[in-house]
Amino acid sequence: MNLLIKNVTLVPMDKKNDILENTNIYILNNKIEHIGYLRGDLKVDRIIDGKGMVAMPGLINSHTHIGMSLLRNFADDLPLHEWLTQKIWPIEAKLTEEDVYWGSLLSMVEMIQSGTTAFCDMYFFMDQVGKGLEEAGIRGVLTRGLIEEEGKSIIKLNETRELYRNWNGKGNGRIKVMVAPHAPYTCSPDFIMKSCALAKELNTGIHIHLSETKREVEDSFKQHGKSPIKHVYDLGVFEIPTIAAHCVHVDDNDIEILKENNVSVVNNPGSNLKLASGFAPVDKMIKKGVNVALGTDGSSSNNNLNMFEEINLAAIVNKAVNMDAVSIPAKTAVEMATINGAKALLWSEEIGSIEVGKKADLILIDIDKPHLYPHHNIISSLAYSVQGSDVDTVIVDGKIIMENREIKTLDVEKIKYNVGKVAKNLINR
Amino acid sequence: MNLLIKNVTLVPMDKKNDILENTNIYILNNKIEHIGYLRGDLKVDRIIDGKGMVAMPGLINSHTHIGMSLLRNFADDLPLHEWLTQKIWPIEAKLTEEDVYWGSLLSMVEMIQSGTTAFCDMYFFMDQVGKGLEEAGIRGVLTRGLIEEEGKSIIKLNETRELYRNWNGKGNGRIKVMVAPHAPYTCSPDFIMKSCALAKELNTGIHIHLSETKREVEDSFKQHGKSPIKHVYDLGVFEIPTIAAHCVHVDDNDIEILKENNVSVVNNPGSNLKLASGFAPVDKMIKKGVNVALGTDGSSSNNNLNMFEEINLAAIVNKAVNMDAVSIPAKTAVEMATINGAKALLWSEEIGSIEVGKKADLILIDIDKPHLYPHHNIISSLAYSVQGSDVDTVIVDGKIIMENREIKTLDVEKIKYNVGKVAKNLINR
Repeated sequence: MNLLIKNVTLVPMDKKNDILENTNIYILNNKIEHIGYLRGDLKVDRIIDGKGMVAMPGLINSHTHIGMSLLRNFADDLPLHEWLTQKIWPIEAKLTEEDVYWGSLLSMVEMIQSGTTAFCDMYFFMDQVGKGLEEAGIRGVLTRGLIEEEGKSIIKLNETRELYRNWNGKGNGRIKVMVAPHAPYTCSPDFIMKSCALAKELNTGIHIHLSETKREVEDSFKQHGKSPIKHVYDLGVFEIPTIAAHCVHVDDNDIEILKENNVSVVNNPGSNLKLASGFAPVDKMIKKGVNVALGTDGSSSNNNLNMFEEINLAAIVNKAVNMDAVSIPAKTAVEMATINGAKALLWSEEIGSIEVGKKADLILIDIDKPHLYPHHNIISSLAYSVQGSDVDTVIVDGKIIMENREIKTLDVEKIKYNVGKVAKNLINR
Repeated sequence: MNLLIKNVTLVPMDKKNDILENTNIYILNNKIEHIGYLRGDLKVDRIIDGKGMVAMPGLINSHTHIGMSLLRNFADDLPLHEWLTQKIWPIEAKLTEEDVYWGSLLSMVEMIQSGTTAFCDMYFFMDQVGKGLEEAGIRGVLTRGLIEEEGKSIIKLNETRELYRNWNGKGNGRIKVMVAPHAPYTCSPDFIMKSCALAKELNTGIHIHLSETKREVEDSFKQHGKSPIKHVYDLGVFEIPTIAAHCVHVDDNDIEILKENNVSVVNNPGSNLKLASGFAPVDKMIKKGVNVALGTDGSSSNNNLNMFEEINLAAIVNKAVNMDAVSIPAKTAVEMATINGAKALLWSEEIGSIEVGKKADLILIDIDKPHLYPHHNIISSLAYSVQGSDVDTVIVDGKIIMENREIKTLDVEKIKYNVGKVAKNLINR
């Protein structure tokens, strides 16, 4: 289907990021064909009226565990260790394929409704997430979180190999698979190296948690005599394109390593605050040239997947941390959630900005809402005022996934019903 | 009008805060008459189906400058001094009565749509805010921000005396007036004492900014040899019930003074972060027994009036600051935005919780939204997952102000149109 979005305000998030008022976007099949004046030579099947709307790239949630939406508001306000060992891990051990399927679909509904068009997931039963992605029509990176268990290394690595074979490139290229050794504190050096060998074999990237908590870093120094980042660097992880989630407790040497090796960091401000992990030095990392993307983490430590909240947090929290109201200005925060995310997910040739030739992954925001009046500065509005619920229309790979807030690809009522059912069974299991 | 809300989940925010599932709330005229079983003896004019809804007290925004919504996204990402002196103050000097009227109405629309039923405003042209409050049907404390100017002290104090005479108790008691010496750095000791004398004369409270920035505190030590809080305490301010906005940079002595004098502190996390003011020691103040309420500050430093965002920030930011995931649990954050706000505004006998005998100021939240599934814990959901846009119905003083997100009392389209017009004129003036 060919689409024309007319009379829209465009925030392209390309290198120049000139905001175009009252412009037109032509989408032919799944790509942006033309931006600007109306073209009689381009035949379209549908015209969308973009008056009162801002078009921007779909948001990219670069680190999440979407199956965990089933555990949203299940355990909060607890010390980290108690939360994990007494609440989250015991209930996760009971999760079935069906649970993860419905939890993941619920997350996709939430992501679509708040403007996220691509995500990078780390969880298990990843076939279910792939199935959900095919149905939902959005874009995702599947990574099976690998926690080393005695005697199961080969099986687990083979699972990822299978996942790659079954899903990488599926959904018209909307689905990718990467390799995810969970973290240096859950995987031995040997297992991490095996994971890297697999990533090399599959010619794909690595997704890993690094330096999320102070204790993790202290333990790493005790055990390995170096930081988690130096540790995995020495193991050769960064020879492979790497998505490093968190990087809260990083020093100047760590930042230098991340920069030199083109590692993409994913900042998860909501989760880092809620779990009391601390404040990542986002401003410093960006100034040193590290690509910093943005994520929500899972819904049990956030407790939502609303990327507009993360954009807002990234923009405001770093100002207070650095005692500098200029730190992480609005545009930088929006970049973290768009083009930087695309870079992290090795997708920046195709998505992350609205440019001719790129895939048509974009959202329309209804700026006629009272809380977005008056219209002094659109970029400020995106970072400081827009809410997830202001997203009106979502287009992914050229297809309309949501219009006038109605999701076209998924049966929302059915998903809510089934989530309610499986969540209840899970608690009683 | 008498109302019955049937089959609702009630989060009363009273002392016990037992959450009642599937209960019924009777509102006779403007008061809560009965909660619980259905009563045939109580005649009602309207029944609201509360299925899939949570009823909670209307949120209370205890510190804001609502006229500033006209300046939303007008100036951001600037150093505080440049922001104030080069952007905000010059444009504020150009504001007219009409501007403040429309800006305030816009703010009331936004507040209603995100569940705020009462606010404490500090600005100028306060008659316009009073006029807006009468129309909007919500509840508010009007305070004319008093910045001392050579030779204008008496005039300015008389303005507040007039404001009190014209507005205090109006709107069926929905409007209050207090006295607002802006801050110790904009008012001399003499002027502050005169303001206090006026508050005593009128038998009303004081609303003042205290210890918002590090520099303000340092300057106070230089000028007065003591902190802003000790300074105004020594001037006798705290003999009067006081709403102290911000209190970011307070030490143990300050906290002791606040506690001993029953001063209500208003935490404004969004604004404190965005302006790089710092992190108020909220957890410590609450543990010491200080009443800490919650506010958004003005929309030029936030940039919205969405109290659900502030609840979320209060709950998550303090955890990271204190490196303690138990700090400011969900219930405490919701208390800050409800009953603590009512205490701050000297209104806790009438509002702030849903209890028989109190005024009917309450909101219904649509928890059937996908991002609120599954329903493990309602209080967690209110703090960590609910968005302002999930508010379905707003009742103030027993009247339905919004239902199914449609505002009954204000002409939203007209307000948006006029805000657009006056904002444009303002920029070009």
